[in-house]
Amino acid sequence: MEIRGEMLIGRQQIVGTNGAVCAINPANGEKLSPEFGYATNEQVDLACELASQADDSFRYTSLEQRALFLETIAQEIFNIGPALIERAHLETGLPVARLEGERGRTVNQLKLFAKVVRDGDFLSATLDSALPDRVPPRPDLRMQKIALGPVAVFGASNFPLAFSVAGGDTASAFAAGCPVVVKAHNAHPGTSELVGKAIQKAVQTCNLHEGVFSMLIGAGAAVGQHLVSHPAIQAVGFTGSRSGGLSLLRTAQARHVPIPVYAEMSSINPVYLLPDVLENNAESLAKDFIDSLTLGAGQFCTNPGLVFLKKSDAATRFIEAAKVAMAQKAAQTMLTPGIAHAFHQGTEKLKQQITLDVLAEGLPSTTPTGYQAQGMISLCNARDFIANAALQEEVFGPSSVIVMCDDLEQTIAITKLLEGQLTATVHATSADHEAAARLIPVLERKVGRILFNGFPTGVEVCHSMVHGGPFPATSDSRTTSVGATAIDRFLRPVCYQAIPEQLLPSALKNSNEWKLNRLVDGAFSAS
Amino acid sequence: MEIRGEMLIGRQQIVGTNGAVCAINPANGEKLSPEFGYATNEQVDLACELASQADDSFRYTSLEQRALFLETIAQEIFNIGPALIERAHLETGLPVARLEGERGRTVNQLKLFAKVVRDGDFLSATLDSALPDRVPPRPDLRMQKIALGPVAVFGASNFPLAFSVAGGDTASAFAAGCPVVVKAHNAHPGTSELVGKAIQKAVQTCNLHEGVFSMLIGAGAAVGQHLVSHPAIQAVGFTGSRSGGLSLLRTAQARHVPIPVYAEMSSINPVYLLPDVLENNAESLAKDFIDSLTLGAGQFCTNPGLVFLKKSDAATRFIEAAKVAMAQKAAQTMLTPGIAHAFHQGTEKLKQQITLDVLAEGLPSTTPTGYQAQGMISLCNARDFIANAALQEEVFGPSSVIVMCDDLEQTIAITKLLEGQLTATVHATSADHEAAARLIPVLERKVGRILFNGFPTGVEVCHSMVHGGPFPATSDSRTTSVGATAIDRFLRPVCYQAIPEQLLPSALKNSNEWKLNRLVDGAFSAS
Repeated sequence: MEIRGEMLIGRQQIVGTNGAVCAINPANGEKLSPEFGYATNEQVDLACELASQADDSFRYTSLEQRALFLETIAQEIFNIGPALIERAHLETGLPVARLEGERGRTVNQLKLFAKVVRDGDFLSATLDSALPDRVPPRPDLRMQKIALGPVAVFGASNFPLAFSVAGGDTASAFAAGCPVVVKAHNAHPGTSELVGKAIQKAVQTCNLHEGVFSMLIGAGAAVGQHLVSHPAIQAVGFTGSRSGGLSLLRTAQARHVPIPVYAEMSSINPVYLLPDVLENNAESLAKDFIDSLTLGAGQFCTNPGLVFLKKSDAATRFIEAAKVAMAQKAAQTMLTPGIAHAFHQGTEKLKQQITLDVLAEGLPSTTPTGYQAQGMISLCNARDFIANAALQEEVFGPSSVIVMCDDLEQTIAITKLLEGQLTATVHATSADHEAAARLIPVLERKVGRILFNGFPTGVEVCHSMVHGGPFPATSDSRTTSVGATAIDRFLRPVCYQAIPEQLLPSALKNSNEWKLNRLVDGAFSAS
Repeated sequence: MEIRGEMLIGRQQIVGTNGAVCAINPANGEKLSPEFGYATNEQVDLACELASQADDSFRYTSLEQRALFLETIAQEIFNIGPALIERAHLETGLPVARLEGERGRTVNQLKLFAKVVRDGDFLSATLDSALPDRVPPRPDLRMQKIALGPVAVFGASNFPLAFSVAGGDTASAFAAGCPVVVKAHNAHPGTSELVGKAIQKAVQTCNLHEGVFSMLIGAGAAVGQHLVSHPAIQAVGFTGSRSGGLSLLRTAQARHVPIPVYAEMSSINPVYLLPDVLENNAESLAKDFIDSLTLGAGQFCTNPGLVFLKKSDAATRFIEAAKVAMAQKAAQTMLTPGIAHAFHQGTEKLKQQITLDVLAEGLPSTTPTGYQAQGMISLCNARDFIANAALQEEVFGPSSVIVMCDDLEQTIAITKLLEGQLTATVHATSADHEAAARLIPVLERKVGRILFNGFPTGVEVCHSMVHGGPFPATSDSRTTSVGATAIDRFLRPVCYQAIPEQLLPSALKNSNEWKLNRLVDGAFSAS
């Protein structure tokens, strides 16, 4: 399957004429052909107009039609075959095995949303019967959630498949019944073209309006802003930097009609190693921590960038073991020259902080031309951590700050001062449960996911997952970008009062043809 | 029960010292005693600090405790007796019978939320079992929604009970487990004091932390802005003007940590009289329309301020009958001097539009000193309506613009250009269903509630109600401020991964002590 440097606007495959970009192989710094042309404002407008035209026909598809569409996309992505993995490997430097795993995750995510659509619970179908004899009489009232309308999706650099063109934002928006206009990430335009064409083919196979999907190439500051400003766009999904997310958020809020932005932005993911678990497992925890920190060159939103310990011999043992483990870690290729540069800047800035000690660095880079990251762990005490905002900043990549606390009270006090996070991890034995019980209420206020005795980098795609959290981890703590309830972001409720049966939407007709589990007069009913 | 001009800050009853205001009886323009002192910034801060201190203990109350609290508030409001109705009548000019009905609605709303809390579905309790043998293994994952934290509530002028101190925002925030700080509306401070003290008493009776509820007196521009800026506040509920709502929204977005604002702002609530129903019922529709328009001096968010007709003899008959009905309507006292003034300004501005014909006005005011509104209906054609934004502005009170259209296509085209609305009403016989079917998809994009063959002023409190709609009807179209799902505004999801049973929140323990209907491995289960 040839990669042509094309955007996808409805059924068109077209090379943009407003400048161009090449992907760069971060392993060796070389440009990858072909060039990808940037979209003009007119091309952005066209994609939005088509999405608007597709809107009603797409949101009125049956649940079965929409589920089949999601399954067809999954199949088409698999049909691309090894070419997809090869190109993604060249563009991102991520290992082939990891990319194959990510493809599986992407496909399973589409299939989960097909199930979510068929179940139909997301519609929140609710019926309240008329009470004609009540004073005053109550009319027949029904409610369902409907799709918001066309959604703009901005893919992430660090998951070229699972958080990109056909990632969780796109899958959940389609599931909700929203057309999607993707702004492909410039770090992996070839991967994006291949996946985008798989979606385009699925649109055609499923006889949907061509405007259900478009994919644009361009700079975030130009094409991205123009896209979010377009009146047809009704919501935004974004995964990336804080500055990028906040910039789109401001644009969305300044529109004549403001729209919701779901931006997943930054997180340092505190890890709490409680005294008894540390006493018993200092060395193995240290090894597991360094493995998690350096996994995928530390390029996860949920990377453990902050560790809290209580001063003790066990804490010293943990630190010594972590130093040994880190010192043996090979340098790894980062996703892009820009990310590698930012990581080096971030670690250099940390090294300049006089209240922070660098404990260990990984092995140096082995390639003179590539963009590699050398892991780093550093140590400070609790007071210095609070006093110096530089120690609290996210350094995207394999860097983590270990904070030595005097006691649990101090740990809790620091935690209350942290910014919002995606995750918090507690390591604890049953002897630590009393301390853990005091931490949990504080962590609930700070994060979207609390986990015990593991590391936060795995984000399961299931009904109960929350990949979200208080600002600035995300722009909207009421939502998640991973898992079944990600669909809720693209819906809003509409009430239907005294509407004749034949004019009611399918989900609300007496006949309940979709066999939904509906809330009828306050109790759930499948009939 | 004496009214003392007091604010309520936790368990304190205290007169503010930062200026003062008296309520005005709009029926005669006279000041009502006592004076109500305005809060200082320190007093606002204290209310917020107390709310923050109450936060954890309140959100961890059992469902039963919280339901009992809501029911106790309901009982305490009834216990105030006739004094509440008398004072509300003096402060608002609303008829006693209407206020008695509104008290019933307020109490029933509290009881509905008690039921919602006991059902516990709002927690969205979700469990996904561990899959230890899967590659990679899946940990045990669970999710529930938790309370956002302290909520600032701004009551409405037009419902001194049901959308005020103990109204839907407060009831749903309490139900979610959020402490509440109310900024009482200066139009009815005495009513607010009585109701606020009923809540304060319920807090005490139920042994809750005093910070669960505070009520402040002050100007929106000072006390309101300071309140919304306070770091302890996590969400805002507001019902009022567009300028007031947008001002709070901007403040909330500019905070170091932005927070959601649920502002219900403005709506002109289009009514569509389709040809066959008009042909058959022109005269009775005209009478019903004028009755609905002038109900409560037209001071409803859902007042029918816009009517679409197709040119016909029946349309002429409708207009003639509406003129007769309007000409017989007595002037009515409005809520406040300011609202009466704005209504007169609005109707004067309409009278100056050369493309609008005033069809009829109601009877003139009978009291020289009071603040009364004389109803007004006016007429324009579709092109002039679109060309002149002044015709599309909300005039809060008994004024409605009738728009004469050439055909359904023109009606649909205009509808697509309307701003977001709370409601749209369609009058139709079965012969009109084809036209109605074409209108509904357009209306779903514009409003929160579509109703047939009625008028929109009744807003039922039930599970399926949506009192919301696209911007600028509200600041967040994904929510409702009336009905059971209003609780969703004050919640966010948290995921618990591999947490030991004894540390899990009650809603997620294996024991399911609250007998919740939970989503377990993708299927609902009550066990």
